[in-house]
Amino acid sequence: MKALFFDGQASMRDLAEPGPPPGEALVRVLMAGVCNTDLEIMQGYMGFQGVLGHEFVGMVEACDNEHLRGKRVVGEINCVCHDCRYCQLEMPNHCARRTVLGILNRNGAFAEYLTLPEENLHIVPEGVPDEVAVFTEPVAAAFRIVEQLSIEDGQRVIVLGDGKLGQLIAQVLWLRSKNTLCVGKHPWKLALLDALNIETALSDDSIEPGADVVVEVTGSAAGLQRALELVRPEGAVVLKTTVAGESAMNMSLPVINEVRIVGSRCGPFRPALEALALGNVEVRPLISETYPLAEAAEAMERAKAPDVMKVLLRA
Amino acid sequence: MKALFFDGQASMRDLAEPGPPPGEALVRVLMAGVCNTDLEIMQGYMGFQGVLGHEFVGMVEACDNEHLRGKRVVGEINCVCHDCRYCQLEMPNHCARRTVLGILNRNGAFAEYLTLPEENLHIVPEGVPDEVAVFTEPVAAAFRIVEQLSIEDGQRVIVLGDGKLGQLIAQVLWLRSKNTLCVGKHPWKLALLDALNIETALSDDSIEPGADVVVEVTGSAAGLQRALELVRPEGAVVLKTTVAGESAMNMSLPVINEVRIVGSRCGPFRPALEALALGNVEVRPLISETYPLAEAAEAMERAKAPDVMKVLLRA
Repeated sequence: MKALFFDGQASMRDLAEPGPPPGEALVRVLMAGVCNTDLEIMQGYMGFQGVLGHEFVGMVEACDNEHLRGKRVVGEINCVCHDCRYCQLEMPNHCARRTVLGILNRNGAFAEYLTLPEENLHIVPEGVPDEVAVFTEPVAAAFRIVEQLSIEDGQRVIVLGDGKLGQLIAQVLWLRSKNTLCVGKHPWKLALLDALNIETALSDDSIEPGADVVVEVTGSAAGLQRALELVRPEGAVVLKTTVAGESAMNMSLPVINEVRIVGSRCGPFRPALEALALGNVEVRPLISETYPLAEAAEAMERAKAPDVMKVLLRA
Repeated sequence: MKALFFDGQASMRDLAEPGPPPGEALVRVLMAGVCNTDLEIMQGYMGFQGVLGHEFVGMVEACDNEHLRGKRVVGEINCVCHDCRYCQLEMPNHCARRTVLGILNRNGAFAEYLTLPEENLHIVPEGVPDEVAVFTEPVAAAFRIVEQLSIEDGQRVIVLGDGKLGQLIAQVLWLRSKNTLCVGKHPWKLALLDALNIETALSDDSIEPGADVVVEVTGSAAGLQRALELVRPEGAVVLKTTVAGESAMNMSLPVINEVRIVGSRCGPFRPALEALALGNVEVRPLISETYPLAEAAEAMERAKAPDVMKVLLRA
């Protein structure tokens, strides 16, 4: 099968079709999305080697569970042991022995086929088209924030970063509090949120500090310091940016202001699928381009450009 | 009156005895303690100019409230407006217009007299000697942690830092969980905790990661990175260190592990006084030297030395 393989360089390869081990399903990938994490991995993040990609929608071609067979599915990316301390503490996403689709010791979704444990799969409601369903994983990552923090209507929320994930987070948090502001560097990106009546500002604008919650999703190491300047005392800063390398921060500020800084990674698929099915989160305006899988290498190059948002791959 | 005044240099000066404004008490200082924050201020932290010092025990010489007059007291250091957003949110320690004893726009305790709002004062129980009561403020800072996090017995707690505040924190957290370890660089300091049956380790020792809570109180910018390596996924890192300047940290680690980093500053005086009165926290072993106020400048120099813990000043 065709797959985009990374071993220091990303290139299309012809690999054997994977045989699912017991408990796993064979999934034919219909559509996959390029995430900034994929681009970070190509810069050395996680030290990953293998097939890239972790956002997908696909058809179950083979599996033991008859309810899944032949169904269109999306899949949670952390594959867990059920046995370690963190699995027993009901924190499976932190399983000490986990593999992660396209990120850690498991081939990913930029391929004709992938395998995942059956328990990771969620059936996609019929009315949700592929190019919407493929956003389930990043929308779930946005919903992780409201699992970690209670955000109530009226609370002042600032999302720093107008990229793909930043926009999904702004949309999801806006469902909780209409007092949500997205700050970015790109007028054309912010315009997508303006169209949804979500307030936006440019990074260079003067922004009133004292927000209850600031989400750092700039993808840049400098974002944390600004988040710490914008959040109120005893407020929360949510970290979504993963960058290879170190960030500088003035530690006195969060101590004096007793800020909570909360790391946030993968989230729950069910509320994400529901929001996509109901149209509560609008993902189609984020799609810049769609490439056939055979041109995945070109698609990755294109995804790095400053003038694109989401790049999709189709079978 | 004699006072240790800082304006880029710390020197003894003869200042006018302060006249307490309405609502404030005039307090004759009996004993004061040197904190690392005082030493940081002398390095430029907070840009403070004035009389140094914020840990004290004293006698109320004049005030409107007859219940306080003539009483021996300790005092909370944040003086607040009762009017700003944070006061109204019942977060007075974050008052936007606060002054802070010996730290922000208010003369401090290394003097014969100070003034503080009556509401800041707590009467010291009779059985608590001055050299114990003078520790109320830093013990309260330790109790702040258990206001912010619920720590249950059996939870694994690591305190990074064996200095004055680190030791008080280790003692307070040990009251909640006997599974508390203090990690430091100084065998003679750690021996003080060994004597209390609190587990200790040297920084160079190999320490099992996966702690539920790690408190960073090393006073060094490098402590945060180690704390992030020792805490378990979804665990908490408490920041107590305030250092002038920036720290480097790898931001991916707290994102992947979804760590909560919690800044922590001033705490509640009542549980601190109670712990001191009951002997649940042992402070006398931390006292290295006591100087008369007239020798405060020498005391500050001495407090910088690596072979001392708490330095006290007496009237």
